Amino acid sequence: MKAARLHAYHQPLVIEEVPDPEITGPFDIIVRTGAAGLCRTDLHIQWGEFEKEHADAGLDLPYIPGHESAGWIEAVGEGVKHLAVGDAVILHPFVTCGVCAGCRAGDDMRCENAVFPGLYTDGGFAQKIKTGARAALKIADNLHPVDVAPVACGGVTAYHAVKRAAKLLVPGTQVVVIGAGGLGHVGIQCLTAMTPAEIIVVDKNAAALELAKSWGAEHTVLVDGDQVEAVKALTKGRGADVVIDYVAERGAEKWGVDMLRSFGTYFVVGYGGELQVETKRIINNELNFVGNLIGNFNELGELLALMAQGKVTLHTKTYPLEQINEAMADLEGGRLQGRGIIVPNES
Amino acid sequence: MKAARLHAYHQPLVIEEVPDPEITGPFDIIVRTGAAGLCRTDLHIQWGEFEKEHADAGLDLPYIPGHESAGWIEAVGEGVKHLAVGDAVILHPFVTCGVCAGCRAGDDMRCENAVFPGLYTDGGFAQKIKTGARAALKIADNLHPVDVAPVACGGVTAYHAVKRAAKLLVPGTQVVVIGAGGLGHVGIQCLTAMTPAEIIVVDKNAAALELAKSWGAEHTVLVDGDQVEAVKALTKGRGADVVIDYVAERGAEKWGVDMLRSFGTYFVVGYGGELQVETKRIINNELNFVGNLIGNFNELGELLALMAQGKVTLHTKTYPLEQINEAMADLEGGRLQGRGIIVPNES
Amino acid sequence: MKAARLHAYHQPLVIEEVPDPEITGPFDIIVRTGAAGLCRTDLHIQWGEFEKEHADAGLDLPYIPGHESAGWIEAVGEGVKHLAVGDAVILHPFVTCGVCAGCRAGDDMRCENAVFPGLYTDGGFAQKIKTGARAALKIADNLHPVDVAPVACGGVTAYHAVKRAAKLLVPGTQVVVIGAGGLGHVGIQCLTAMTPAEIIVVDKNAAALELAKSWGAEHTVLVDGDQVEAVKALTKGRGADVVIDYVAERGAEKWGVDMLRSFGTYFVVGYGGELQVETKRIINNELNFVGNLIGNFNELGELLALMAQGKVTLHTKTYPLEQINEAMADLEGGRLQGRGIIVPNES
Amino acid sequence: MKAARLHAYHQPLVIEEVPDPEITGPFDIIVRTGAAGLCRTDLHIQWGEFEKEHADAGLDLPYIPGHESAGWIEAVGEGVKHLAVGDAVILHPFVTCGVCAGCRAGDDMRCENAVFPGLYTDGGFAQKIKTGARAALKIADNLHPVDVAPVACGGVTAYHAVKRAAKLLVPGTQVVVIGAGGLGHVGIQCLTAMTPAEIIVVDKNAAALELAKSWGAEHTVLVDGDQVEAVKALTKGRGADVVIDYVAERGAEKWGVDMLRSFGTYFVVGYGGELQVETKRIINNELNFVGNLIGNFNELGELLALMAQGKVTLHTKTYPLEQINEAMADLEGGRLQGRGIIVPNES
Repeated sequence: MKAARLHAYHQPLVIEEVPDPEITGPFDIIVRTGAAGLCRTDLHIQWGEFEKEHADAGLDLPYIPGHESAGWIEAVGEGVKHLAVGDAVILHPFVTCGVCAGCRAGDDMRCENAVFPGLYTDGGFAQKIKTGARAALKIADNLHPVDVAPVACGGVTAYHAVKRAAKLLVPGTQVVVIGAGGLGHVGIQCLTAMTPAEIIVVDKNAAALELAKSWGAEHTVLVDGDQVEAVKALTKGRGADVVIDYVAERGAEKWGVDMLRSFGTYFVVGYGGELQVETKRIINNELNFVGNLIGNFNELGELLALMAQGKVTLHTKTYPLEQINEAMADLEGGRLQGRGIIVPNES
Repeated sequence: MKAARLHAYHQPLVIEEVPDPEITGPFDIIVRTGAAGLCRTDLHIQWGEFEKEHADAGLDLPYIPGHESAGWIEAVGEGVKHLAVGDAVILHPFVTCGVCAGCRAGDDMRCENAVFPGLYTDGGFAQKIKTGARAALKIADNLHPVDVAPVACGGVTAYHAVKRAAKLLVPGTQVVVIGAGGLGHVGIQCLTAMTPAEIIVVDKNAAALELAKSWGAEHTVLVDGDQVEAVKALTKGRGADVVIDYVAERGAEKWGVDMLRSFGTYFVVGYGGELQVETKRIINNELNFVGNLIGNFNELGELLALMAQGKVTLHTKTYPLEQINEAMADLEGGRLQGRGIIVPNES
Repeated sequence: MKAARLHAYHQPLVIEEVPDPEITGPFDIIVRTGAAGLCRTDLHIQWGEFEKEHADAGLDLPYIPGHESAGWIEAVGEGVKHLAVGDAVILHPFVTCGVCAGCRAGDDMRCENAVFPGLYTDGGFAQKIKTGARAALKIADNLHPVDVAPVACGGVTAYHAVKRAAKLLVPGTQVVVIGAGGLGHVGIQCLTAMTPAEIIVVDKNAAALELAKSWGAEHTVLVDGDQVEAVKALTKGRGADVVIDYVAERGAEKWGVDMLRSFGTYFVVGYGGELQVETKRIINNELNFVGNLIGNFNELGELLALMAQGKVTLHTKTYPLEQINEAMADLEGGRLQGRGIIVPNES
Repeated sequence: MKAARLHAYHQPLVIEEVPDPEITGPFDIIVRTGAAGLCRTDLHIQWGEFEKEHADAGLDLPYIPGHESAGWIEAVGEGVKHLAVGDAVILHPFVTCGVCAGCRAGDDMRCENAVFPGLYTDGGFAQKIKTGARAALKIADNLHPVDVAPVACGGVTAYHAVKRAAKLLVPGTQVVVIGAGGLGHVGIQCLTAMTPAEIIVVDKNAAALELAKSWGAEHTVLVDGDQVEAVKALTKGRGADVVIDYVAERGAEKWGVDMLRSFGTYFVVGYGGELQVETKRIINNELNFVGNLIGNFNELGELLALMAQGKVTLHTKTYPLEQINEAMADLEGGRLQGRGIIVPNES
């Protein structure tokens, strides 16, 4: 099959023929790739920032990146009864064991034995991908792999935080969303679909803010140094009941906390920065900070339900597999409107 | 002041001059009535069905019914600091003590010392109403007492059940609402505003079902003997994740349970019938049944927030106080589209 | 191997040689039976009450009953990585598929493809039992299969209800437990270990009530016709915050509801009767009714943790496999103190 | 009446005659002080550390400190119906308005109009104290003000965190308590009474750790530089499911986080330090941080229920009002075993 492989850090991917993956265990599946989302993490991998993690995981180059995949079942192991050849599926990025306490609680990300194709084994930038049967979720008839692939990882992370926040967002509350990019895009639409809260979106990009209004934001605030005061003005001086921080680096995790109301909850989703809050402030205002990883398998199903209903849609640009390096250059250069999607097979 | 009083059961109300109510305790307030919702319970009272309750409560006729009131503060007791003369307010029907364990938990309906004007003391079918300061909730500037009065009791009851159901209604779930009348009207709009669930409305009135679609119902089902099969067909044969029963009498509480999915939850809001379910069926399907009374004070505030945002609106018809008996006849005769509202004062 | 099989309804089990079970799928396991709990359901099966269910499930006689088993792993399918030959395990009665939405949420009992050995396929009254890898939970070193087998089904059902009730049982609350038999025995100990609630145990058997005190009951009430008044007297006339009904038949599900406080919750665990409550009563008192099935796999692990800590212990009597009909006669005749356990192998 | 007043920061309190407090509002009450707990905050006040807060609150010296009081009702305002002269009561430190959204939700600490006697108005180091009717909670007949006064503030804070943590502490979980002093003392007993979790207590004081065992701690760990490794050794290398940090200063809030398991929750109760955690660590491990203030009024009632049952007891030493400066010196000098209690009246 054709695949895009990373042979060396800091080098372009190489498009080449490689052997097809094969079923080796009873719960393996092979998926013909319909779409593979391009994620900022793929740039970080190319830049060598996962060298240590790769070594720890025993991964040697070359390998195939790509961890947001969807496609059609091509083969299944003998233990797989719930999937059939030809089924259209999206692939949760985490291949879980199904038997540890985390898995048995439905908390896939707590799996103690998970495999992560695209990060630590061969992934989706190829015509076929091998993964585990527990990763595959059938998609609705009115959706195509190209419509949904990028929610496999980024989108379900955005959803996961919104789902938890929704419990707090009763009528009359206000929520600040920091970051109207890849994750915020999905998160804001989910907030609109799932809660009656007033949505305030904060971003440094005026064009992204304009889009945010079309996704349901009541108010937008530009990051210009006065963003905290602007949010205070929109919240009667008190701050928002909930802040969902899809950035959490370069200072957002500092001024973001200043946007939070007493007794409020701060959902950390992005990363790169450091949370620093005096314990006296934490207790006097009963602040809560909640870390958010990728959503679990059922949450992916819930997000897909919103997409099947047309309540969440993605802005995407597709590239054939041969143009993956151009796609990565577009992403790095800020020329990509919405999410880039690699399409390795004619559909 | 002018008031409509019940002098004898089974008789029309009498419009007459009565002494103005007076502040007698430090937490009393007097409200100039802007609007008083007419409720089916007012008919039941006229028909003598509350004779025993009245006797138990020590209430002698004549008295002034009306328990869904809104208006403007006219006077406050010396202990009242948070309300000022002229404030526009809606009145929660339950005047709570504020110091029992229920009140201290925010569960107004668990108050052990509550007073219920309109049911057991003089109510809102008069130019002025005396109540307690804890019952008064300020309304937003863009709302008028006539817009909101009927939610004081019926609406906040409908909301209370929806708020509890919303926790279960994640994307991809389905909810059946039985009854698209006074309560269902509010409940369906709240479901649309607060949840991504697919809404199926069941009613015996085809015109009400037509309206339900405009409030956000995806599907409607006429009560024609085949309503259970119709719901099963809409839910892949499984039934709905949640049923909210705003009727719960005349058999609805029987066939309604047949619309419930295994592991589902049935919210009982209406009354008059009897729940009858074999315990084997309850456990084998892990069914849940949840009783719902009037919402609490903060829930009334949350519902008012939805109304101020335009997400919940009421269909109403106003009558001057002098026409209250015509209004009650219209209600009894099924000639009232939406909720009837008595307006005792020029605004 | 030796097994006890039911050849005909209403007949004793036959102890006989049968072929050993064999691994046929990648997730199968074979367990050498260390202990198999005898349950009242085994009598019901013998009495022919499951004839229809057996037919529906495609089960032909003869077959091996027994659904509360524990033992040691003897063989595993090729897909099983987390269990090794020789591991001591208890077997959750439900063999779940692991991939349906219920399983993915951790709600084993919502599995849409489950198998139930002992009820609908061969079970534990034999020297070996074949089941699925997802059913096996390793037990702590300080526990032996004989100590734990009966909690596989009955015990974890009792625990499941207590775990849900515990959220409501804050200090100062009161809980009524109806039934101090096989399930109540475990449930009362769990309540003592997990909550500060005052425990009131209601049973028709004075000796069982005496034992209940040693498990942590503060008060006991004999079912003598005045049991509701007795509970009212212990609860300031209000009833208990929570009732856990391990009987739910022969009237308990009627007078049990009379023991429930306004705004309280009634956990239905037993079965055989019919719940009958007027909807007016349900709403006026905001009553909740919650159905309870067998606990899930992680709940079985939690209960085993309590047992490993010595906080829950079982009263048992062991019988060799050859005496299974005597054991069943003892159970039927009320001569069995505690739970009967069949021990098919020398340990 | 006799009172101990602070005339100048850094000076001893002055025992002197002052006018009795008087009822001036309808919800005022006067309590004859039975016991007034001495708290470390009283030292901080004496040391001038609240000078700015006092100025902000409009408080001029001299004034009467003491914010953990219990006693007997001596007089009530005309609006008070639920308390009678002679009632034995403990006083929640926060006098709340009862009508803001926080109060209406039962969240006393969210009151927007609260008064704090002992901190910002005259408090309990006197023969009588004036407070609001909403602050007074009747105590059980088997308790005396001297038994309970210190839980009015410190104890109910400790309880508040435990109550929230209890939801996470299912059987088989482990909880670390940092600090076995005034708050930890109560917190550990509450954990023992309310949860089946294994309790690990961490403190720098070996004697306090010894006591902790008598309160229910399974393990104790001395703060000696290796405390993180010690906790890791007790938790299979993973850390505890929950950490309750009653210290949160001088580094505890740093190494405490290292004791937390992935997907665990850290309850911040003490203060003085700064929480510093990389957002990447927060999300990769889905860590949660929860701020905890004083418990609410009903939580005080729940804690008192545990005390009435004998499940929580206090180690105390009483002093007459005249010896308050000696008591404060004992506290400062570390000579006080348990909590110091000032007794201003013969009982």
